[in-house]
Amino acid sequence: MMYHEVDTPSVVIDLDLAKNNIRRFQDYCDQYGLDCRPHIKTHKLASLTELQLRAGAVGINCQKLSEAKSIANACPVDDVLITYNIVGTHKLIQLEEFSRQVNLSVVADSMEVVSGLSKTFSTNSSKLKTFVECDTGAGRCGVISPVEALQLAQQIDRSAGLEFAGLMTFPPIGKTREVNSWLAEAKLLIEQTGIAVAKVSSGGSPDMFCAHEAPTVTEYRAGTYVYYDRSLVEHGTCSWDECALSVLATVVSRPTQNRAIIDAGSKVLTSDTMGLRGYGHVLGRPDISIDQLSEEHGRLVSKQGIGLQIGDRVRVVPNHACVVSNMLDHVVVVENGIVSGTEPVVARGQVW
Amino acid sequence: MMYHEVDTPSVVIDLDLAKNNIRRFQDYCDQYGLDCRPHIKTHKLASLTELQLRAGAVGINCQKLSEAKSIANACPVDDVLITYNIVGTHKLIQLEEFSRQVNLSVVADSMEVVSGLSKTFSTNSSKLKTFVECDTGAGRCGVISPVEALQLAQQIDRSAGLEFAGLMTFPPIGKTREVNSWLAEAKLLIEQTGIAVAKVSSGGSPDMFCAHEAPTVTEYRAGTYVYYDRSLVEHGTCSWDECALSVLATVVSRPTQNRAIIDAGSKVLTSDTMGLRGYGHVLGRPDISIDQLSEEHGRLVSKQGIGLQIGDRVRVVPNHACVVSNMLDHVVVVENGIVSGTEPVVARGQVW
Repeated sequence: MMYHEVDTPSVVIDLDLAKNNIRRFQDYCDQYGLDCRPHIKTHKLASLTELQLRAGAVGINCQKLSEAKSIANACPVDDVLITYNIVGTHKLIQLEEFSRQVNLSVVADSMEVVSGLSKTFSTNSSKLKTFVECDTGAGRCGVISPVEALQLAQQIDRSAGLEFAGLMTFPPIGKTREVNSWLAEAKLLIEQTGIAVAKVSSGGSPDMFCAHEAPTVTEYRAGTYVYYDRSLVEHGTCSWDECALSVLATVVSRPTQNRAIIDAGSKVLTSDTMGLRGYGHVLGRPDISIDQLSEEHGRLVSKQGIGLQIGDRVRVVPNHACVVSNMLDHVVVVENGIVSGTEPVVARGQVW
Repeated sequence: MMYHEVDTPSVVIDLDLAKNNIRRFQDYCDQYGLDCRPHIKTHKLASLTELQLRAGAVGINCQKLSEAKSIANACPVDDVLITYNIVGTHKLIQLEEFSRQVNLSVVADSMEVVSGLSKTFSTNSSKLKTFVECDTGAGRCGVISPVEALQLAQQIDRSAGLEFAGLMTFPPIGKTREVNSWLAEAKLLIEQTGIAVAKVSSGGSPDMFCAHEAPTVTEYRAGTYVYYDRSLVEHGTCSWDECALSVLATVVSRPTQNRAIIDAGSKVLTSDTMGLRGYGHVLGRPDISIDQLSEEHGRLVSKQGIGLQIGDRVRVVPNHACVVSNMLDHVVVVENGIVSGTEPVVARGQVW
């Protein structure tokens, strides 16, 4: 298929850029002795999971068990960290089954979650590696103080079927040093009781090139780095030229000189703003703002004249690449500027 | 399957409520002699399409050809209006094929779109019914004045393969009378040239019960009325008791007395705000705000104490039901308070 034959809207992956992005962050991790554990939510693809592992990743990170299972069934994956509290009998049974397929680790941030895991794994021959999730400022999940981290680590340490694996955090943006202090304090408290803290896992693409400023961290989980997106360009992490995911769209209406409508709306670009104004960046047209989305329409406006005709195609870098990967069943893959094919998004829609 | 066995997060449809909602709006349309043409984007289900048609709908409305095709292939549909400018050879070929399967109408808002349609249908035995899309204030697609509507109607009227079908608009909210004036003026201009305006199609769930205040309108396209959602409750169109779609979610973390995290994030609830604060309404808990979503986490906060334990389940009415229907491959159907099964969302992800 030629590029101009690709139907719109489509999610287009530039494989060469993705490979460069994988290489760049893996090199960074290698330079600082950090384990690189990609969050595969960004692409949800078998091919890029394999490329990340081949480049040197120690394993993969998923938030949901179903996402991990669908990737592990699509390509050879050995080491999986699920950074999510697994709650409920149905999921715990599936988790136990999955633990026989891969080298599995999970997290917990409460006695209740630890108790459910322990009950499920107590009769297993091998113990389930369990991290304590720490809220180092993001205000989502996680124990809220180093003392609570210590208490939960001790609980895990004495729970049948579980092995305390270390500390895990989803850190707030721009607070690398504060996060390090939090984790260092918790680590010290735990080690003072004679419990080893084997790993300390942090993550997040915005600050990934600052990871070395948190020497307590041994492992880094980044996702968006494989594609980058508008939020990371605006954050200064990358340039437009490095963005490997874009949405190809067609102008279907040009009602006024300053307004055009494209055939990609929130069902492709999503309504994620990431704190930005507008819903994406039209490559090569910094004057254009995508100021409104409905499900199937994207509205492009420009004060200097929209300069687009019906039938013209544009490429849009979305605000947030990960959520766009979740919208369509297939992506179009481009290599050396030529469409090399499509790939099923095997982990799309896996929310369980 | 019992209700408590439904895995979370799930999109749950109360079929009894949906049937009531379908009946209520159909009765309204019948009372005022309006043709009811449901926008099936809200549910994307074969079963509800059939219920809407059986209740008295004249046909269905879709924005994208692929959405229309997937529904028409899943259940008996005869009459389809695609309210979208069809642009590009690939889509035009498919449109022509689809016109042999159903009684098809489309819209156009420019000479370019009319020209593409005419070229495709010029050798057909039956003409393609083509509406002029009118921008009556929403600022999306559509010709921007009644005079432009006249010019395009004339263009359609003299185009080989096309039949001018009437006027279509996606109206701005709360402007029913102004929309009527716009359409009445355009209709008069066109009729003065001897061209009949067979139909005038308007739509939108927020103002659907004001449709009779626009006597020029002959057909009404509503989508969300089948489920309702938080945006329509806040708008005053319906009550929480009428909301037929909810997201069932489990509390997976309770880090503080005022905060709980559920296992439904933007991959289920979506980031659509519809101009509201927060990302949904927790049924029975008006004190709770869902103030933050990430892909797999929803953050619930309440000043008066969150009062939820890990493992508790909540039902969330999302801001916007239509976009939630697009997120998962299946919905869970409840009848008389009992889970009657799951149904595939056959038109999910159809953006072409």
